[in-house]
Amino acid sequence: MRAFDISDAARDAARAAGIDTVERLEELLPADVAIVATPLASVVTTLAALVERAGSTVLIEVGSLKAAVAVFAETAPRAVRIVGMHPMAGATTAGFAAARVDLFRGRPFLIVPTARSDASAMAVAGTVARDAGGVVTVCSAEVHDRAMAVLLSAPLAVASALAVTGVQAGPLLSHAGPGFRDTTRLAGTPLDLAEQLLSANAGHVVAALAALRAALQELEGAVADRDRDALRRLLARAAEVRATLDS
Amino acid sequence: MRAFDISDAARDAARAAGIDTVERLEELLPADVAIVATPLASVVTTLAALVERAGSTVLIEVGSLKAAVAVFAETAPRAVRIVGMHPMAGATTAGFAAARVDLFRGRPFLIVPTARSDASAMAVAGTVARDAGGVVTVCSAEVHDRAMAVLLSAPLAVASALAVTGVQAGPLLSHAGPGFRDTTRLAGTPLDLAEQLLSANAGHVVAALAALRAALQELEGAVADRDRDALRRLLARAAEVRATLDS
Repeated sequence: MRAFDISDAARDAARAAGIDTVERLEELLPADVAIVATPLASVVTTLAALVERAGSTVLIEVGSLKAAVAVFAETAPRAVRIVGMHPMAGATTAGFAAARVDLFRGRPFLIVPTARSDASAMAVAGTVARDAGGVVTVCSAEVHDRAMAVLLSAPLAVASALAVTGVQAGPLLSHAGPGFRDTTRLAGTPLDLAEQLLSANAGHVVAALAALRAALQELEGAVADRDRDALRRLLARAAEVRATLDS
Repeated sequence: MRAFDISDAARDAARAAGIDTVERLEELLPADVAIVATPLASVVTTLAALVERAGSTVLIEVGSLKAAVAVFAETAPRAVRIVGMHPMAGATTAGFAAARVDLFRGRPFLIVPTARSDASAMAVAGTVARDAGGVVTVCSAEVHDRAMAVLLSAPLAVASALAVTGVQAGPLLSHAGPGFRDTTRLAGTPLDLAEQLLSANAGHVVAALAALRAALQELEGAVADRDRDALRRLLARAAEVRATLDS
């Protein structure tokens, strides 16, 4: 196994931990598998830097959105093999020192085929995921990115909107209980990450937020109309969906 | 101290614990202070049943909304003393067996004067709150109920709307991470309580939800327009408000 990081400090730390590090990205090749784990904005440029010399290497990228990789893969050389993977796990810490062997244990790994994924490349990606302790689910880039808008971006947006609305509680805001605190927790997401979660998947995010506003407006209408049955129906549906997450 | 509960079982349990219980509500009087702790819908009827014989008793009700009590107090006999109190603490358990001496320790107690609160009644309420371990804040019924719409009802509504929207994640919904789970937690609020939190304070709740939808629409517009500056400004404002709750 060989590793590369653009940070000198990260390479030094990895080397000190006994990992065979190289000084340039391209020196990772040749290899059976290369895992591209960069910030989202650098995934495609890193894949592009590798495809020339990739040969039969399976390139696995682990970014949190898949549309740009899907587009890139369609125009990549025919012989190249690229598979998307999204390990749904993470920590607020970063860098080599924050690495944990149990980070991925039992977590969902979404594997997303591209126009350059063949059966053996998918099998290799599945093995990598399971070796890390992940539980594999396969889905398309479209299904993946739409789901991320709902599961990652929409909660951030409602938490932020609710926090902003909180100022209307005036001096009592500081007495907010656990309900308000939990529901606004994501409003404290670091600004760069929050901006990326909303803007990097803009099409799906706008659709998810529009659906969310419609659901909220339906609730608000039932309250305004004193329509007890409609209100209970909406709340019961929400509780039912939420209950599926408790099992 | 004497206690009354409409439930025979609760009175028996209290009696077994050494509390002097009475068989009818009115037998609580005469007393220096009577604390009315009933479901919200019964607060005013219970106060009405007590005012006839209340004399100089300070009647303290601990319901979670204050508008109805404010209206009732305005037409109550001149000599009666009524003070609203809202201990912002609670548990999902209920009944005598769930009583805990530390439930209120360090929690905010909002004290809400009515048209039948005089200075000495307010002082008595303050003593009761502090004796229970509470930290006292005084506010008007209007400020109180508006804040509750923002702090209690709005989080429930967004959690429910987000849960409903979750079905758009399709089969990936079951892979939702802690962000989605925390932000939708309140969607699991018991149905009767959820309905009451939204409908019993309908005017303020509709206003809070309209403000929330406007904030969400602003975020959605910034995403749709790829307006990076506007998006960061909104997210930064939300983070700033949320940060005030962390101290």
